[in-house]
Amino acid sequence: MAQEIERKFLIRDPGIVDSLAGERLTQGYLSHDKNATVRVRIAGNSGWLTIKGKTVGATRSEFEYPVPQEDARQMLDELCGAGVIDKTRYRLPQGELCWEIDVFHGDNDGLIVAEIELPSEDSPFDKPDWLGEEVTGDARYYNSALSSTPFNQWADD
Amino acid sequence: MAQEIERKFLIRDPGIVDSLAGERLTQGYLSHDKNATVRVRIAGNSGWLTIKGKTVGATRSEFEYPVPQEDARQMLDELCGAGVIDKTRYRLPQGELCWEIDVFHGDNDGLIVAEIELPSEDSPFDKPDWLGEEVTGDARYYNSALSSTPFNQWADD
Repeated sequence: MAQEIERKFLIRDPGIVDSLAGERLTQGYLSHDKNATVRVRIAGNSGWLTIKGKTVGATRSEFEYPVPQEDARQMLDELCGAGVIDKTRYRLPQGELCWEIDVFHGDNDGLIVAEIELPSEDSPFDKPDWLGEEVTGDARYYNSALSSTPFNQWADD
Repeated sequence: MAQEIERKFLIRDPGIVDSLAGERLTQGYLSHDKNATVRVRIAGNSGWLTIKGKTVGATRSEFEYPVPQEDARQMLDELCGAGVIDKTRYRLPQGELCWEIDVFHGDNDGLIVAEIELPSEDSPFDKPDWLGEEVTGDARYYNSALSSTPFNQWADD
């Protein structure tokens, strides 16, 4: 078990990923319950099952286990419903920390989000120029929420 | 991944378990969704995470993975809510098959259920004298349902 402490931002300059190699991620949810989400993910040839608790501030408990890729595929196809998320993840190290920049596809096309995992809630970190508005704690941007209400369904306002 | 084909019965004679050694099982649910239940179980020193699909007839898909016992404990305590199920499981071989007899405790005290896992939906099996009414497919007896509506809350009728 780990605690996940993460801050999430929009992106001012999407060109930041142009020189990076990305990894395609496909993921869906066996449970959208806000007290415990259960995520199935395929990353390359690997399958993962991840349980996350409720977010308190920027922190939530997280349990992650490898599963056979074919199990993950079958769970995505048969048990996760329609809202499977497809995105490319780029990693951009910053000192001892690392930005993860997710470029979404399909129904979430147009959405790009940067996350940084921190050792503690009050860890300092630099905010690069390409970073936009912070959306930590905005439930619309949770991947579990994007799987049921994708970005292309958000009302313009 | 496996397919689980199971038939479930009540018990006419609870004395059938008196000569058997049982194993205590504690389990809770991260998801009660009927399309995909996610179960956390502690059996002795072992932890398990089990995903089951929707039941069609007596069959459902099942994915089961070992997890550290302390992870399972933490998920039960922090993520599964109040409805943790506590029961003792007894195994009674019958030819190549095996009856699993669950004697429930706590809020499900008084409930005893026997299950048999079959190689196919139409596999023949003997029905011993101690067996009572069949309850396969009766959703009230799903363990996921018993965790939210335990036996001691069922209306007398």
